Amino acid sequence: MELLKRRILQDGKCYPGGILKVDSFINHQMDSKLMYHVAEEFARLFADSGANKIVTIEASGIAPAIMVGYIMNLPVVFVKKKQPKTMENMLTTTVHSFTKNRDYTVCISHDFLTADDRILFIDDFLAYGNAAQGIIDLADQAGAQIAGMGFIIEKAFQHGRDILIEKGIRVESLAIIQSLENCEITITDQA
Amino acid sequence: MELLKRRILQDGKCYPGGILKVDSFINHQMDSKLMYHVAEEFARLFADSGANKIVTIEASGIAPAIMVGYIMNLPVVFVKKKQPKTMENMLTTTVHSFTKNRDYTVCISHDFLTADDRILFIDDFLAYGNAAQGIIDLADQAGAQIAGMGFIIEKAFQHGRDILIEKGIRVESLAIIQSLENCEITITDQA
Repeated sequence: MELLKRRILQDGKCYPGGILKVDSFINHQMDSKLMYHVAEEFARLFADSGANKIVTIEASGIAPAIMVGYIMNLPVVFVKKKQPKTMENMLTTTVHSFTKNRDYTVCISHDFLTADDRILFIDDFLAYGNAAQGIIDLADQAGAQIAGMGFIIEKAFQHGRDILIEKGIRVESLAIIQSLENCEITITDQA
Repeated sequence: MELLKRRILQDGKCYPGGILKVDSFINHQMDSKLMYHVAEEFARLFADSGANKIVTIEASGIAPAIMVGYIMNLPVVFVKKKQPKTMENMLTTTVHSFTKNRDYTVCISHDFLTADDRILFIDDFLAYGNAAQGIIDLADQAGAQIAGMGFIIEKAFQHGRDILIEKGIRVESLAIIQSLENCEITITDQA
């Protein structure tokens, strides 16, 4: 996605340790028009996926996910990082965060993820694929199918895609970072 | 907002202690079309507010906020509940959660909240007004003005509005819950 790649090269900031900061337009301050274009692109890519529901994980996945849901006319569910005391019928799994170097428990109500669902997972980043694996585990517990997974930015050098492809999941990323070596952003849109 | 009120009466669930659960259409599973209509209503109400930026707080405020931003053609910033290690130039404040009975620190980058900003705060619930007061504190620290605050649902019996009105802030809620006594939802759209 050309618009997104240009924006990443223009406004993305690179930090040691393979960190790409896009907090001026994607995951802290958000460019609402860009986010809509991102969602249109996901909707186009997954138009034939047979998804009946969008799933994301709080917090940075919510903005693209709600717009994809709006364009595709589908409900959106966000997996929560804190377990609300009123949540009934809860499914949980553990996700490891490399960035924060800790495990955390995430949850979704079984009421909104069932064996009738075929979900499209939308998130801001694909890195090591840990959040995505958490979603696969939740879907397995619920008996739900996965129609595909869409990421705004993929860090190819962290190889999360390999794990997902091995499980037979269709993966679409709108900008693929090949390298952040020497704090230089090398980018493509082909996996 | 008639559509919203009807939906709350139809799908909202009431729990002892003044808890209204709307997790099938607003803050866990989200009805993307309803969310768009909610955003259109906020955009209409605040069209003349002079806001140059939408601010919300993760996680449930993000979906309505990004859509308001899209419709009003404004950037959206979400205040974070965890402090990212790469955030520079950070402003923080403490918010008390009555629901969870604890204080937590929230943060926003000063880069995205400055003395040039006139912000519209959007959130899912107005209850005691604690999150809103956190936003006021962050805006004060940044020297930013507040153009208004919009809430999808207000729990009038928890009186958050009074605190905000006293500070001269314009408050708009799209559905106002007068009472949840005996687990019966009494609702209006006038404050």
